[in-house]
Amino acid sequence: MIKLILFDLDDCLFDITELGSYARAEALNEMIKYGLKVDFKTGLAMLREVVSEYGSNHPGHFNIVLTRLKSLYPESLGNIPEEKLVAAAVIAYHRVKVRNIKTFPDVVPFLIKVRKNYPQIKIAILTDGIPVKQFEKILRLRIDSYFDDIIISDDIGIRKPNPRLFSYAVDKMKVGLEETLMVGDRIDNDIIPARSINIHTVLIHRETKYDVDKDQVRDSQPEFEIRSLSELFPILENLKGKK
Amino acid sequence: MIKLILFDLDDCLFDITELGSYARAEALNEMIKYGLKVDFKTGLAMLREVVSEYGSNHPGHFNIVLTRLKSLYPESLGNIPEEKLVAAAVIAYHRVKVRNIKTFPDVVPFLIKVRKNYPQIKIAILTDGIPVKQFEKILRLRIDSYFDDIIISDDIGIRKPNPRLFSYAVDKMKVGLEETLMVGDRIDNDIIPARSINIHTVLIHRETKYDVDKDQVRDSQPEFEIRSLSELFPILENLKGKK
Repeated sequence: MIKLILFDLDDCLFDITELGSYARAEALNEMIKYGLKVDFKTGLAMLREVVSEYGSNHPGHFNIVLTRLKSLYPESLGNIPEEKLVAAAVIAYHRVKVRNIKTFPDVVPFLIKVRKNYPQIKIAILTDGIPVKQFEKILRLRIDSYFDDIIISDDIGIRKPNPRLFSYAVDKMKVGLEETLMVGDRIDNDIIPARSINIHTVLIHRETKYDVDKDQVRDSQPEFEIRSLSELFPILENLKGKK
Repeated sequence: MIKLILFDLDDCLFDITELGSYARAEALNEMIKYGLKVDFKTGLAMLREVVSEYGSNHPGHFNIVLTRLKSLYPESLGNIPEEKLVAAAVIAYHRVKVRNIKTFPDVVPFLIKVRKNYPQIKIAILTDGIPVKQFEKILRLRIDSYFDDIIISDDIGIRKPNPRLFSYAVDKMKVGLEETLMVGDRIDNDIIPARSINIHTVLIHRETKYDVDKDQVRDSQPEFEIRSLSELFPILENLKGKK
């Protein structure tokens, strides 16, 4: 019997892969509009490179791209102040993120239905990331009131894939490990650690950055694989008989 | 004959005093909406206190207010995570700033007219502040294309009221000190340093944070005082005969 469902946030409840990629493209476009001399394709490849090298949480992506451009193509900035281009990029990036952030279409219908039909099941978000930034996403997505708790790893000082983050969440919600279901998009960060301590696991395919092919050879297998949260209901029924 | 007009940005070309104060009130409102238990008046007084103690550029105003509230009224946060309240405040603050930033009504008409009628006069912004943040304001205000240059003190490493920032700007624009007019809202940061090196000075009254009363006793007097940028035209005519 499942008493707690833990959800990953990024690329599980909303499409951060697409949103980030769209926002970065718009930011680059805006810098070009303000006079940056770089071919869009070259610029975008460089921006993606920087994001993957410095990590998606680094605050200086646009500065690094401009530094890199200056060293490779010394004429690309002309006389335009670097900070003007960064400001233009930040405005565009932020505008795209604020206007376009939205949950996957199955999320709110699922949350409403699980609340109504399974009042005994607690639901929580279990996510990595900078706490204020993660809360900002959750509030902008307008989903905070559906959850019994929101657990952000940097508040605990234990990050995914450390299984102790998962057992912390289970203890906090006062349920058992076998009464818990972890839903996430990543084999490495969500499925492996949860399975290692006997939490039930569901891999969700969202066709985003870390999505793995169904037939791909993997280190570990989740118990269930779904494409939509509505598929969780038969799984909850399936696990009802088990302890 | 004036060949260069230097403009301060904040509270000279747009009302940052009002915008900041409105944005902070909305941010506090939003935290209260998310469950912060504090009387609006008490909370706003505390937020203002923090801004004045830590400076308006400090990135952690909302965190500091919450820390202060917790120590004075231990029950004020209840079980709400601090980062959730900060995220709510940041979203509201940003929304208000983005939607409501606008130049004073006399600014664009002045810029158009000076461009048309005084093509020999260069115009530039001379401002303190974090360069990307200042450019962000200028781009959101949509006034960057009117200016021949935008000089931000932290790019030079010399801040107001150091007169060398003003002589740097004059040298960069290739004019003489007596051919330059500084327009700003602050006696201490704009008028005194400009006068000290023989730049012509205009104090603009915008009824904002640092505005001084016309009859108030002051350390230094500007040559001219105005309430609207349209009043600059007779001043330009007045200074035409002089060297």
